[in-house]
Amino acid sequence: MRVLLTGAGGHVGRTVFEGLRNAYDWRLMYHSQPTEEPGVPYTTGEVQDIEDVRPAVEGVDAVIHLAGDPRRGAPWRSVLKNNIDGTYTVYQAAAQEGVERVIYSSSNHAVGAFETGERTPEMYRADGEFLLDGTERPRPGNEYGISKATGEIIGRYFHDSHNISVCNVRIGNLNEDHPPIDYERGQAMWLSTRDCAHIHDRALQADYDFEIVYGISDNDRKYYSLERAREVLGYEPMDNSAEWDGAERVE
Amino acid sequence: MRVLLTGAGGHVGRTVFEGLRNAYDWRLMYHSQPTEEPGVPYTTGEVQDIEDVRPAVEGVDAVIHLAGDPRRGAPWRSVLKNNIDGTYTVYQAAAQEGVERVIYSSSNHAVGAFETGERTPEMYRADGEFLLDGTERPRPGNEYGISKATGEIIGRYFHDSHNISVCNVRIGNLNEDHPPIDYERGQAMWLSTRDCAHIHDRALQADYDFEIVYGISDNDRKYYSLERAREVLGYEPMDNSAEWDGAERVE
Repeated sequence: MRVLLTGAGGHVGRTVFEGLRNAYDWRLMYHSQPTEEPGVPYTTGEVQDIEDVRPAVEGVDAVIHLAGDPRRGAPWRSVLKNNIDGTYTVYQAAAQEGVERVIYSSSNHAVGAFETGERTPEMYRADGEFLLDGTERPRPGNEYGISKATGEIIGRYFHDSHNISVCNVRIGNLNEDHPPIDYERGQAMWLSTRDCAHIHDRALQADYDFEIVYGISDNDRKYYSLERAREVLGYEPMDNSAEWDGAERVE
Repeated sequence: MRVLLTGAGGHVGRTVFEGLRNAYDWRLMYHSQPTEEPGVPYTTGEVQDIEDVRPAVEGVDAVIHLAGDPRRGAPWRSVLKNNIDGTYTVYQAAAQEGVERVIYSSSNHAVGAFETGERTPEMYRADGEFLLDGTERPRPGNEYGISKATGEIIGRYFHDSHNISVCNVRIGNLNEDHPPIDYERGQAMWLSTRDCAHIHDRALQADYDFEIVYGISDNDRKYYSLERAREVLGYEPMDNSAEWDGAERVE
């Protein structure tokens, strides 16, 4: 399967590519020239420029679209251009080129404002009962979150109008290959390196129409349901932040 | 109550202003100079330009935000600028100026892709059972619909971050002051002139946090629930497209 990965220079992009390097026929798209040659075909360019995106998309079976301004504090002007317009442009090129599947990197920030002062920090704890399952309406906590929720809606439109299979993965925290220390929220939404590669592998393999799933490890503290990812994608997370004490795995 | 109406030159804008002219202390914002003097204070400008919007918003108690490209076939580039960026800018100015309430003109097109080939035309008929109630995730049928669904999410963000009361009115069809003839879909989502003014009046008066309601008359053919508008806003529609035969009301 020929797969285009946009945002190949970012943290999620590198994690997906490194974890699945041998499983797919990759094409990478970078924002700027990578410092190391990736060893597979790649292009550079702006995702909001259809002239840059079309040649990257041409001939691929699936797109994993990760490119965009990844900063949770990114200003409106930047996410409007890089994330909202960029995502529309990638889908537009995918539709024009007949791509059958797009996996879109959404974010916990699309629903960040569910984390109200009344619910936190209890919701970050293993005995907290609050659980989001992906059927809720978006509730972004910042401009970045607005842009990610909008990207999901753009995908819905291209699914309905062009029959593209779309999987939106609301990614948690992929900071290090161990959960953050002394940070309850981060432990709740930790996504390990191998679970990150695995959920993208499943999103490339499974059959679906339009899905919104949460991309986190099977953390005791989680407040995102993994039901849909398990059921539709066959996601089987291997990690759980509760099995780590600081940066050491507890055997 | 001092109320700013953006998009005052459009069809919905003129209908709201004419219907509620004497009930509020109006300020109008036009895209370009109106051909007739409205008789109340007004400004002209671009809603995506904060320098144009801020003076219009200053000192008002509520904003009814209708401005944008209203064409269902509007291209992405136009709705990205006029509708998405414009709506963000209006909310940004409202937040900066401490405005307590924003009523946002959303659209049936935010959920237009629910009208699939399998459901239509049965869903447009009085005995059709399909009903949307506003809790569903958006499913736009065109780029205009993407922009309207995004405007709702922008409102959600400003409600959560700045405690602005936000009412999104998914407006049906306000074409003439009678239902369209020989057009089932149009009869299903007809919004009469007086119901249009009334629902905006209720949205200015009622107490709520964040709402998504459907703005149509009480049509027998409707596939949008009016429950939420009735319950939260106290909306009491006076019209029903089934009471019209062609352009004549059936008594």
